[in-house]
Amino acid sequence: MSKTSKKNAIYGQSGGVTAVINSSASGVISAWREHQDEVGVLYAAENGILGALNEELIDTSCISDDVVKNLRYTPGGAFGSCRYKLKNLAENRQQYERLIEVFAAHDIGYFLYNGGNDSADTCLKVAEIAKELGYPLQAVHIPKTIDNDLVITDNCPGFGSVAKYVATSIKEAGIDLASMYATSTKVFILEVMGRHAGWIAAGAALASDNELSPPHIILFPEITFDEEAFLHKVQAVVNQVGYCVIAVSEGIRDKNGVQLSAAANVKDDFGHAQLGGVAPILANLIKQRLNLKQHWAVADYLQRSARHIASRTDVEQAYAVGYAGVKYALSGQSSVMAYIKRISQQPYLWEIDCAPLTEIANKEKFMPRDFISVDGFHITKKCREYMEPLIMGEDYPQFKNGLPDYVRLTHVKIAKKLQPFILIK
Amino acid sequence: MSKTSKKNAIYGQSGGVTAVINSSASGVISAWREHQDEVGVLYAAENGILGALNEELIDTSCISDDVVKNLRYTPGGAFGSCRYKLKNLAENRQQYERLIEVFAAHDIGYFLYNGGNDSADTCLKVAEIAKELGYPLQAVHIPKTIDNDLVITDNCPGFGSVAKYVATSIKEAGIDLASMYATSTKVFILEVMGRHAGWIAAGAALASDNELSPPHIILFPEITFDEEAFLHKVQAVVNQVGYCVIAVSEGIRDKNGVQLSAAANVKDDFGHAQLGGVAPILANLIKQRLNLKQHWAVADYLQRSARHIASRTDVEQAYAVGYAGVKYALSGQSSVMAYIKRISQQPYLWEIDCAPLTEIANKEKFMPRDFISVDGFHITKKCREYMEPLIMGEDYPQFKNGLPDYVRLTHVKIAKKLQPFILIK
Repeated sequence: MSKTSKKNAIYGQSGGVTAVINSSASGVISAWREHQDEVGVLYAAENGILGALNEELIDTSCISDDVVKNLRYTPGGAFGSCRYKLKNLAENRQQYERLIEVFAAHDIGYFLYNGGNDSADTCLKVAEIAKELGYPLQAVHIPKTIDNDLVITDNCPGFGSVAKYVATSIKEAGIDLASMYATSTKVFILEVMGRHAGWIAAGAALASDNELSPPHIILFPEITFDEEAFLHKVQAVVNQVGYCVIAVSEGIRDKNGVQLSAAANVKDDFGHAQLGGVAPILANLIKQRLNLKQHWAVADYLQRSARHIASRTDVEQAYAVGYAGVKYALSGQSSVMAYIKRISQQPYLWEIDCAPLTEIANKEKFMPRDFISVDGFHITKKCREYMEPLIMGEDYPQFKNGLPDYVRLTHVKIAKKLQPFILIK
Repeated sequence: MSKTSKKNAIYGQSGGVTAVINSSASGVISAWREHQDEVGVLYAAENGILGALNEELIDTSCISDDVVKNLRYTPGGAFGSCRYKLKNLAENRQQYERLIEVFAAHDIGYFLYNGGNDSADTCLKVAEIAKELGYPLQAVHIPKTIDNDLVITDNCPGFGSVAKYVATSIKEAGIDLASMYATSTKVFILEVMGRHAGWIAAGAALASDNELSPPHIILFPEITFDEEAFLHKVQAVVNQVGYCVIAVSEGIRDKNGVQLSAAANVKDDFGHAQLGGVAPILANLIKQRLNLKQHWAVADYLQRSARHIASRTDVEQAYAVGYAGVKYALSGQSSVMAYIKRISQQPYLWEIDCAPLTEIANKEKFMPRDFISVDGFHITKKCREYMEPLIMGEDYPQFKNGLPDYVRLTHVKIAKKLQPFILIK
């Protein structure tokens, strides 16, 4: 495909949103506008790949430069995201052929997909089917996930901000406990996201600058939960410090590999299974076994949408992978991901490079064992050195009437050219 | 007592801490230092009234002016707070007599107590026993409570910041849902504090600038929880908007006046009562009855310690009541509270005045019925107008290594002069 063919592009947001995915969108749109003489129109698919399948395409040229700039400061997915994984080619070829049909109808030469593991896989498959059908397409993946579990990239846009949020939150709650523990709460538990990888829980550890400062205990999904060792540790910390602050990954598992939140099988009076939350389970355990007063919090969506306390480093990296994604696509790259490469630790320097999606899709990066302390309850110096630069810097949104003044996009969609898509299951 | 007698003072922090109680401490210490030629030493009681009883007195003159200034930016109670209510005079006169004994030993002429309802009561009783025993003392109460339930004062220091936190959080989580609801979560529930009064839940409503924007439903302890009406409303909002965002007070009650979190009587497999959390109960209800995908968060201590997103108005008012408290004490006032008086709504203007504690102690200010919408699920324009000024302005702490750089005080305590206090029960 010639670079001067003035092809159009589709950009899509996928999976759980983050505080900074719109910064990537801002990078994509800004880079595209810099090349306006060489390219056509940049469309955003509404709700990710679903918008591409259903021909729900938003014309980004209707968005003012000011709004594009302000997208950098707005959490969530401005164009809508989705939890929708395309089946593999053999199982549902129809979906892929439909995508190519939509691309052809709208003269799409570039597909920019912004998401985590599943979207890397989608992006790769779209590139493969295009190649197979002889449709000229540059498909580039732009990484995004608070889970920080993509391989190759040093870290994932979205992670630095959630780490900053959980570390700030646990630092503040720790100060609260330090003020009150003499007559009140002795143990505080913050449940954070992370079903498989413990990166977010590890982020909380950044609040602790010495052995006695909160958080005192981190529970990772990578480490089998040992009830007795945990209770022993809690009591030891309370004896030494007076109180104990804990960060726990939602996905911690028992020795049978069963998630605690599922294993507890908590039921209400009607026999209904009670919904999730490992924090109340641990709180209950501490109350029953140690008889210590405790409190617990579940951050849930607050952590991944907390743009008000985003990491400036994260915001800049999210922008940079979006911006670079367009550059790679326009320079003829395909089936690649724009990723963050750490150049130096002191001072912290990074650049964007690209790597083949075949090396990235369907792989998951867990906490390495040497990032977790020997006893399994905290992070190591090596982990701290890795994470510290990722939460550096603040990048406050504008405020209006006391609240963040986030951008709201009107989705100006283009006319459909095809019949509605009906998925044959 | 003469104003020129160079008497000493005791300042104490009491009850659940807030993001801005140390701003009041900063105001107290700053005002005291302005009068250093007329007064003696300002001591801070460690852990509130307990420090006074046990003669654990911190010498605030050892704290540098810089640290005093930075206390304004630090959450929690820098001198330690306590949950400890003095019994009434008839029941335990010994405690009150001990206080006067400590005051006399350290030449205390001023008692400045910083807290909520219980501490207003403590402050009043201390003033009464001093008077009864002929001990010259100016006892002044400095208001503090995220619950916003003290009477006379327009609002309570601590409330504006928690309201700003919950409104910001629910605004951000609402944007998250708006991005994802097409294929994922339809209902999000944020549980906030407020066992008796719904002010904090009402604060969340500030995020909503029109009928369709989150939060769509607020549940107040003042309004009896009606399961059917609630479920009907949730479904109606989902039908209209596509998703539904809910803020709920931890203290909502059923028609028998029983808190939902207690009434549910949730038990784990061992028959243990599961600890608190009304959010998971509502989430379960929504899942069982409406079959909608939901998520829930419990903010717990995060909300009251979130200094990083404090309201500048709140920080300034907290400082002002502390500062004025000293002025009132030095000018010979006693048994009074320094309170916030709203002078004008547009522009928002306020000043500090003082009122007798007899009119304040043991009274509780609930949400007036005309602050809650007719259907009981939201706030009225009147409530919005009252709350809006309270969250105005930002007042960011300094950051270091990506996290707020909060002050940590070393408690330099003075030598004890008395025998240890043994409470005879």
